[in-house]
Amino acid sequence: MNIVLLDPRQTQSEMWTITSKRQLEHLKTHVGVQVGDTLKVGILQGKRYLTEVVSIAENAIKIQAIREESVPAKLPVTLIVAMPRPKVLRRLIMDAVTLGVEKIILLHSYRVDKSYWQTPFLQQLEHFITLGLEQAGDTQPPQIELYKRFKPFVEDVLPMLIHEQCPAYVAHPYVEQKMPFAIDHACSIVIGPEGGFIPYEIDLLIKNGCQAVSLGNRIIRTETVIPYVLGRLFSTC
Amino acid sequence: MNIVLLDPRQTQSEMWTITSKRQLEHLKTHVGVQVGDTLKVGILQGKRYLTEVVSIAENAIKIQAIREESVPAKLPVTLIVAMPRPKVLRRLIMDAVTLGVEKIILLHSYRVDKSYWQTPFLQQLEHFITLGLEQAGDTQPPQIELYKRFKPFVEDVLPMLIHEQCPAYVAHPYVEQKMPFAIDHACSIVIGPEGGFIPYEIDLLIKNGCQAVSLGNRIIRTETVIPYVLGRLFSTC
Repeated sequence: MNIVLLDPRQTQSEMWTITSKRQLEHLKTHVGVQVGDTLKVGILQGKRYLTEVVSIAENAIKIQAIREESVPAKLPVTLIVAMPRPKVLRRLIMDAVTLGVEKIILLHSYRVDKSYWQTPFLQQLEHFITLGLEQAGDTQPPQIELYKRFKPFVEDVLPMLIHEQCPAYVAHPYVEQKMPFAIDHACSIVIGPEGGFIPYEIDLLIKNGCQAVSLGNRIIRTETVIPYVLGRLFSTC
Repeated sequence: MNIVLLDPRQTQSEMWTITSKRQLEHLKTHVGVQVGDTLKVGILQGKRYLTEVVSIAENAIKIQAIREESVPAKLPVTLIVAMPRPKVLRRLIMDAVTLGVEKIILLHSYRVDKSYWQTPFLQQLEHFITLGLEQAGDTQPPQIELYKRFKPFVEDVLPMLIHEQCPAYVAHPYVEQKMPFAIDHACSIVIGPEGGFIPYEIDLLIKNGCQAVSLGNRIIRTETVIPYVLGRLFSTC
């Protein structure tokens, strides 16, 4: 936690109040916060501030804003990823948020086990987003959309995301063209499930405007390939 | 597991034998391998082959090489990373190996809890390396070195790793110079612990030849920053 993320309702009087159990415990136990310390604070969907700790009680820490600080810019990218195993989902969302992805789409695919859509973790996406924002020092949650049917998404939704200034790349091991790097425009990235997309899916993605590009001949896990690709594409950011 | 990694001793007769419990279980339960199927196999520190399954017994699968396949190239990078929390260590090693890091150095630092050096996971580094190689389809383990004292490493070992064609970059949030991208030479990367290096450590690293470079104003976890930086630096590979 590199900032404390507050709901706008917690910041409506002159003195702001931290009341979340998780945040209080982190600040007291891990940070060892004291009255008079400064604390970086963000307001969800709002600004970021340097604040000073005014009082510490059992169930509330009161703080006062000292000055505004800048919120990091987002990466102009839509990350379209085959729904991962539940234990990977948490990390994937946290990492994508931390790195500044603007929009995340979770998609069904032939090699995605249908049970993955039943995971209780899907009810906790907001929590994972909060953790990612607090890690990065960001205040703007990304959009998240879920599509449980591959074909309607690829045929009806995906083409609307693609235009000349915003291509879509699907990572695919068996093509000549390499994934671009250091781009200066927006894009969408499509990442397949464990075991990859099936040929029918790759063909449908290409038919609907995706460029199939290779990341070399190493096979990289979904959760690892996401930061790897973002670092490569947005290296001028 | 995208290849089955064998010890050279398992490949000395014409017919090779898979006997590891973990590999047998994966092949039987997860892959559902049958006699006549092809199987990608690597020989540790050796070549990679496409093989054919000849027989399947309870404790052994016998295979026969069909043809040689290429082993992916390594990234010309030494990754120097502050010893992470035990539960991060496994993933960090696996990911670094999967992505092709040539040499990994685990280093003590002021903000590294001394107990981390007692973790039983340090006895399992070879296993984590095997998992990373099997994921990537690689056969060449990286070198791994451990330094439990920061200052002697930085003063006596690090300078020998740095030369004109091989600079060292330390990721540091508060500098102007940005981390380079799409480089065409070898380098070392130094990644601090949770909470970062202390100023004394950054100063000592710089004094001994490191360039402090920024990755922007998002704070990224160690295990996420490694693929992010590798994707950025080696995007022409």
